[in-house]
Amino acid sequence: MNLTVLIHCPDQKGIISAVTNFLHEKGGNVVYLDQHVDKQAAIFFMRLEAEFENGYTQQLFDSEFKDTLAPRFNMKWQSHLKKIKPRMALFVSKYNHCLYDLLSRYHSGELEAEIPFILSNHKDLGFIAEQFGIPFYHVPFSKENREEAEAEQLKLLKEHKVDFIVLARYMQIVSSTVIAQYPNKIINIHHSFLPAFAGAKPYHAAFKRGVKIIGATSHYVTEELDAGPIIEQDVVPVSHTHTIKDFIAKGRDLEKIVLARAVKLHLKHKTMVYNNKTVIFT
Amino acid sequence: MNLTVLIHCPDQKGIISAVTNFLHEKGGNVVYLDQHVDKQAAIFFMRLEAEFENGYTQQLFDSEFKDTLAPRFNMKWQSHLKKIKPRMALFVSKYNHCLYDLLSRYHSGELEAEIPFILSNHKDLGFIAEQFGIPFYHVPFSKENREEAEAEQLKLLKEHKVDFIVLARYMQIVSSTVIAQYPNKIINIHHSFLPAFAGAKPYHAAFKRGVKIIGATSHYVTEELDAGPIIEQDVVPVSHTHTIKDFIAKGRDLEKIVLARAVKLHLKHKTMVYNNKTVIFT
Amino acid sequence: MNLTVLIHCPDQKGIISAVTNFLHEKGGNVVYLDQHVDKQAAIFFMRLEAEFENGYTQQLFDSEFKDTLAPRFNMKWQSHLKKIKPRMALFVSKYNHCLYDLLSRYHSGELEAEIPFILSNHKDLGFIAEQFGIPFYHVPFSKENREEAEAEQLKLLKEHKVDFIVLARYMQIVSSTVIAQYPNKIINIHHSFLPAFAGAKPYHAAFKRGVKIIGATSHYVTEELDAGPIIEQDVVPVSHTHTIKDFIAKGRDLEKIVLARAVKLHLKHKTMVYNNKTVIFT
Amino acid sequence: MNLTVLIHCPDQKGIISAVTNFLHEKGGNVVYLDQHVDKQAAIFFMRLEAEFENGYTQQLFDSEFKDTLAPRFNMKWQSHLKKIKPRMALFVSKYNHCLYDLLSRYHSGELEAEIPFILSNHKDLGFIAEQFGIPFYHVPFSKENREEAEAEQLKLLKEHKVDFIVLARYMQIVSSTVIAQYPNKIINIHHSFLPAFAGAKPYHAAFKRGVKIIGATSHYVTEELDAGPIIEQDVVPVSHTHTIKDFIAKGRDLEKIVLARAVKLHLKHKTMVYNNKTVIFT
Repeated sequence: MNLTVLIHCPDQKGIISAVTNFLHEKGGNVVYLDQHVDKQAAIFFMRLEAEFENGYTQQLFDSEFKDTLAPRFNMKWQSHLKKIKPRMALFVSKYNHCLYDLLSRYHSGELEAEIPFILSNHKDLGFIAEQFGIPFYHVPFSKENREEAEAEQLKLLKEHKVDFIVLARYMQIVSSTVIAQYPNKIINIHHSFLPAFAGAKPYHAAFKRGVKIIGATSHYVTEELDAGPIIEQDVVPVSHTHTIKDFIAKGRDLEKIVLARAVKLHLKHKTMVYNNKTVIFT
Repeated sequence: MNLTVLIHCPDQKGIISAVTNFLHEKGGNVVYLDQHVDKQAAIFFMRLEAEFENGYTQQLFDSEFKDTLAPRFNMKWQSHLKKIKPRMALFVSKYNHCLYDLLSRYHSGELEAEIPFILSNHKDLGFIAEQFGIPFYHVPFSKENREEAEAEQLKLLKEHKVDFIVLARYMQIVSSTVIAQYPNKIINIHHSFLPAFAGAKPYHAAFKRGVKIIGATSHYVTEELDAGPIIEQDVVPVSHTHTIKDFIAKGRDLEKIVLARAVKLHLKHKTMVYNNKTVIFT
Repeated sequence: MNLTVLIHCPDQKGIISAVTNFLHEKGGNVVYLDQHVDKQAAIFFMRLEAEFENGYTQQLFDSEFKDTLAPRFNMKWQSHLKKIKPRMALFVSKYNHCLYDLLSRYHSGELEAEIPFILSNHKDLGFIAEQFGIPFYHVPFSKENREEAEAEQLKLLKEHKVDFIVLARYMQIVSSTVIAQYPNKIINIHHSFLPAFAGAKPYHAAFKRGVKIIGATSHYVTEELDAGPIIEQDVVPVSHTHTIKDFIAKGRDLEKIVLARAVKLHLKHKTMVYNNKTVIFT
Repeated sequence: MNLTVLIHCPDQKGIISAVTNFLHEKGGNVVYLDQHVDKQAAIFFMRLEAEFENGYTQQLFDSEFKDTLAPRFNMKWQSHLKKIKPRMALFVSKYNHCLYDLLSRYHSGELEAEIPFILSNHKDLGFIAEQFGIPFYHVPFSKENREEAEAEQLKLLKEHKVDFIVLARYMQIVSSTVIAQYPNKIINIHHSFLPAFAGAKPYHAAFKRGVKIIGATSHYVTEELDAGPIIEQDVVPVSHTHTIKDFIAKGRDLEKIVLARAVKLHLKHKTMVYNNKTVIFT
């Protein structure tokens, strides 16, 4: 088996040798190791991939690691089997560029994921789900039906054993209840270079300010709007010749590329979150 | 002579043909024309370069244009002789990277400018002025001597017939009086991707927010801090592996390049300002 | 009507004022003018957009311009009505990312084009044509059926009144006959930063050379392989951590974005070709 | 002491745990570890930084590592004390931008290096060496005095105990003898995006080809011109509006930034070379 292990703990001496030794003793070969220390915060981070050809299992690893190294170093950790594809729900509204982009990547085998369903507060993009043969749920959302809609979302997420959610230009605030159940597991794409132009209509705001570069930001969703841990950002130059419509068109290309990159990093367990920031192993 | 003309006025029909005709009739050959219309604001902008080989002068152009086309189209306009080098004062504090960069460009003939003096609120960089043989004035600035210092600055600017001021990491707020006398003629470099992280310590703020890209912004100075018309911006990727010190080191390269680009655009009369934004002709 | 006019001719005095005057006299309002002079080659280029509200037609313009200014300045020129959507044929093989990208843009109304058909030397992508309801022609191509295949391509292009062809990762050399009939009207995407790594397997070659940046290039197809006039290029950083497979995955995103930008420039008549180079009006 | 260790060897199981154990046993704390496997070539690379507070020395490490792990895994390796500043010679000709840039960084403490001397085949830049108080040697180079000049270069390099050489736009081919004595220790800056436009006058060639992006490449010098292992590359967009002179001006900024980045990577022992490629630890 190929096992990916993510660890973070207070920084201290001897962690790397202890962990690599542990894996070595269990018959594992470390094929990848990346580590990071935030010296200011005194936190240690590590991502390893180990290969075992001796029948050692994830279950064994989990139980043995839990009883030995994890408590010794006060670690928070996860293990993931490479062959397991995470289950990703897509939430959309009316814009189709991110949806088309993710689905065509999925369809080409570029994304190591399952997509159990697409959910939308509007019916408009149902036909794309149909084009790609993926179940589509229309869950309208308004002040009046808020609790009902939320309940339906949670029911679908549970039923389909969803591991994480991608907001592919879902123009609706996700409720606290959903966020609480999917901590650092909801990926949003915001159409600005955060923290500039958080909130609604960022392209309009960028145009008004007369910036020479616009951006897009993919981040994990937290309670505070557009303020969650940033996974990926990219930018594109603009000039006085571009109208707001041009900003939006250029932005679409940014949004889809930046979101896709963030989704791939998440799928490969290359992101770790702490202090509202991310460590991205590449 | 080679004359550069900058024009802006309410958008209306026939401006381009009227102006190009005017120049044609005076014996000028238009060797460059770039124009822009901000449709939302209904403002027309144009930059022309015309060559005259018939003895026609800037003085003649100015007086004839002023009496005919300018009032007809309600134009604001300026003309500049290509052979005249603008006079640029450099204001610095303690950081030397922008100063070294501008001076080495100046020294190589890359900047078509005169540098009558370097002014600083600290003595630290005086030796660089000396290295390059440029007069250096030490004008300390504090709450107590504010008015005096301001008066001295203005006196130096007048005496040396300064056309515009470059704040090459001048870590001191320029007073309203100076700004009022040099409207859209003071160029600052701010070490963030504005409007993100305006104000003090932008690299620290960027680090805390966990951004994946940092930037620098060159802008004209207005009363409101870090909120003036943006001339040029650029960015560089960062990651969790970078400390604040790394941000600062990467930022230095951005700052000097972005500031130098803005200075060159200003020197070539390629910038126009309106509604707190710029039109940049390239 | 809104008329776009592209002109190039030997550089000489008075062209801009002559053309803008001409349009003014016919009742047109020049809403956009961009011009360029290649001083080395002594060639003048201009792109104008003019609006007429007086019933003046493209036919009138064409015949009057042809008899007056065009011969006087020895101009090569074209005029295009803004409301006419060019007809674009898509040629593909087995890779689907550029095809999906163009079709989703088309479907969202982002491309002002008609797509009469998709042609491929393989059957693999027929289902995508079907997904989007666009006719699909399978025209296999081999040494043996070369002439036949060529004839069929030309027949389809004629029948469907195709204005230009987009090779959206068409892994087959287009024949000289087709190129001759569509000069500067066949757009290719090459998966390298040309002129580096022309020809087959550019990602493999880039990997072997150990470059730190990879690119994609969109260009007009000429007789010489990968040597036609470049329309658009972009790049993305890579490192020693990336395998050839990673290069290919990163490249896919570049290819689709760069090709789409080139297609949009062509659709808006913003490209002019001379000396195997392009002038791109933006 | 803080010790940086660079290792490469045939890929095999257990290397990481063996090395981290070794350091742990000697009382070292691994504060940084980055590792890479080129699977195609089956080579393992690692860079570690370890801190020792127990009086353990580089000499001890070198002798103990040499007798134990190094032979067991068939390793090639080096160790470097963080506090030792490498000695860097600068070779220049007539262009001053890279020289000014490196010297101003050096002067600000940004480069952890000693600069024992500047050498040039021309006298032009001697005054800059003087500005910064660094010895300057004028060693003319021609077909006639080739062997003499080479001998003088080697003599100076030896006398000043130079660790590596930076060709800061040294417009002269370095002789095989010098290259042989400084393998992967001569850093050049080439003013194109290699492998495009190797050899002389790359900006002219790029202009002729009509590229939309130009670049600069820093690489280690090998026998074959402009074909050595690439350390760093960067690019900047250009358009039809730019002349060759503009390419050169834009290129200057690229060259100095790219060269400085490469020099810093080398100074921090973050580069490893194999198969004419580099592994760059960041």
